[in-house]
Amino acid sequence: MQSRFPPTVYLSACDVIHLVQRFGLSRCIAGVAERIERDFLRWPEFDKSARVACHSSDGVIELMPIADAQEFAFKYVNGHPKNTRRGLPTVMAFGVLADVDTGAPRLLSELTLTTAIRTAATSALAARTLARPECRVMALIGNGAQSEFQAIAFRDLVGIHTLRVYDVDPDATAKLVANLNSQRLHVIICNSAAEAARGADIITTVTADKTNATILTPDMIAPGVHINAVGGDCPGKTELHADILARADVFVEYEPQTRIEGDIQQMAPDFPVTELWQVLSGTAAGRKCDTDVTVFDSVGFALEDLSALTFIREMAAQLGIGDIVELIPQTSDPKNLFSVLGPQSADHRVAALV
Amino acid sequence: MQSRFPPTVYLSACDVIHLVQRFGLSRCIAGVAERIERDFLRWPEFDKSARVACHSSDGVIELMPIADAQEFAFKYVNGHPKNTRRGLPTVMAFGVLADVDTGAPRLLSELTLTTAIRTAATSALAARTLARPECRVMALIGNGAQSEFQAIAFRDLVGIHTLRVYDVDPDATAKLVANLNSQRLHVIICNSAAEAARGADIITTVTADKTNATILTPDMIAPGVHINAVGGDCPGKTELHADILARADVFVEYEPQTRIEGDIQQMAPDFPVTELWQVLSGTAAGRKCDTDVTVFDSVGFALEDLSALTFIREMAAQLGIGDIVELIPQTSDPKNLFSVLGPQSADHRVAALV
Repeated sequence: MQSRFPPTVYLSACDVIHLVQRFGLSRCIAGVAERIERDFLRWPEFDKSARVACHSSDGVIELMPIADAQEFAFKYVNGHPKNTRRGLPTVMAFGVLADVDTGAPRLLSELTLTTAIRTAATSALAARTLARPECRVMALIGNGAQSEFQAIAFRDLVGIHTLRVYDVDPDATAKLVANLNSQRLHVIICNSAAEAARGADIITTVTADKTNATILTPDMIAPGVHINAVGGDCPGKTELHADILARADVFVEYEPQTRIEGDIQQMAPDFPVTELWQVLSGTAAGRKCDTDVTVFDSVGFALEDLSALTFIREMAAQLGIGDIVELIPQTSDPKNLFSVLGPQSADHRVAALV
Repeated sequence: MQSRFPPTVYLSACDVIHLVQRFGLSRCIAGVAERIERDFLRWPEFDKSARVACHSSDGVIELMPIADAQEFAFKYVNGHPKNTRRGLPTVMAFGVLADVDTGAPRLLSELTLTTAIRTAATSALAARTLARPECRVMALIGNGAQSEFQAIAFRDLVGIHTLRVYDVDPDATAKLVANLNSQRLHVIICNSAAEAARGADIITTVTADKTNATILTPDMIAPGVHINAVGGDCPGKTELHADILARADVFVEYEPQTRIEGDIQQMAPDFPVTELWQVLSGTAAGRKCDTDVTVFDSVGFALEDLSALTFIREMAAQLGIGDIVELIPQTSDPKNLFSVLGPQSADHRVAALV
């Protein structure tokens, strides 16, 4: 009866790195974006909730569950801006897919690299939907771990050919420039956020500080700009001046979560926003004219992780990547969990120890 | 710099089975109970929330997070009563311990076997605190995967020597009786819940059906009985007649969660309950006299899993059990996640595939 037990596949960080290397980052970003769009178009099918956050002085740890009738997914993810000082990533993540009809976990995967890919894919999908079609220049403010992924996603899916980059940490900018060296992108290093924003069609903010920062102020925002606000994603962690939001059309992933975590946490609870899936499905308007300022107040939503998990599961299966892990004990009689301990299960061998 | 990265230890189902076999189940139950009591005594130190449940027609999948200033823990657990028909366990679980100050996951472990141990440990701890001291006879209604663990925990921690057992499934009862054969317990097979309850000092209900069942009615409850109600743990899943609750002193783990999931979901929102930690710490009364009926309306709380996870981590370290898994990609520069993809990361090798 053991063979009936559905296996749990494990994809380590190495496995997913290998997978992305094999298919190429561009193809993975495009594949995840396509999957996210498809899943956003069936938005009402999902059992959605705002993620559960556990805050501490230096960061946050979050669990992000979601399910449709077939699959349950969740992601574990942290956000600790000071981690880089001790050589650790700001964001670390892993996640699980499980069968809704039995509860059996079927996939356990790294999601740190995958989160960077799905966040960039979501940003680019939103910009393709909300920005002016002829956008070619993007300001990229915040040049940390997510920045290359944003750059490549916007090049591939939006048509960006010039980046105006800025970070408070010049080493981060130097790293970004070096990484984009062979990426067919014209990169201009700027000395301030204001300078980066100048002449940009799209402004992406992807900063990490856990404060109510004001990365962008209204004077930096030209008519027609699309703002892709990625780093304001936690209570007390915002990037945009409230007046930018007040004058713009603001789009969000899942309103109940963004009210708590997004840049709109600065605004009144009835501040009008539109969910991205509504624009994708044609049930709400996106940009109305070329001079509108649009803001995608992105915080990261569980559905994007479900989409990414199903994508990498499919790619891993194509490549034959992944190990089977025994997370769940297997018994011939499921009511006989006790039997896994063997014939004399209770208190033998105690004497032999200590 | 890779050596600075804190490792994630993985304990598979086999590892934890081996661990319990080595130390003995009795010692593990006692160790977990001790850990749970110690953690319940520092209750205010924990960041607590009701677990997040995703309900489907046949079951529920839950995430149970909790943290103190040092450690974050969560458990994934399902409850699918019909699973046994396809050879799968009703309850499957795994969990994680992470560092609060960095968010790094440090332990990934099976928790199916461990959940049975911690549930039994919590039940016995509550009974030791709330039942009359001279309890020797326990009714055990529901003879499935959890039942042996309850039996042994109550034998060891409460002094039960006689079990009156009943299940709607006679095979489950036969399995329980066989498993307890060498366990120094006098086991009496009963033909109904009412018969099992007759003469019992403690009544444990640990049934699985996802319905508002009425396993116990007021006529079965003698003065002085302690009821350990384990199986009413989900909205729409209860075991006790409301009149039993109305006449008893009811104790719970974490009130906000039990209001939703426990047998008290049948009662008014202001129905009085006492949290177990208050009795343990002496800030609230437990049983007031020998004729009181006490109910432990147990649903399973995240803190019990944190206690169990820290216990098995310590035991595994003593035995040198466990593997290191690379859930998180490691880079020499944490801001350079892109570098894990290698020198020409974006879209090489695409052509070679498909």
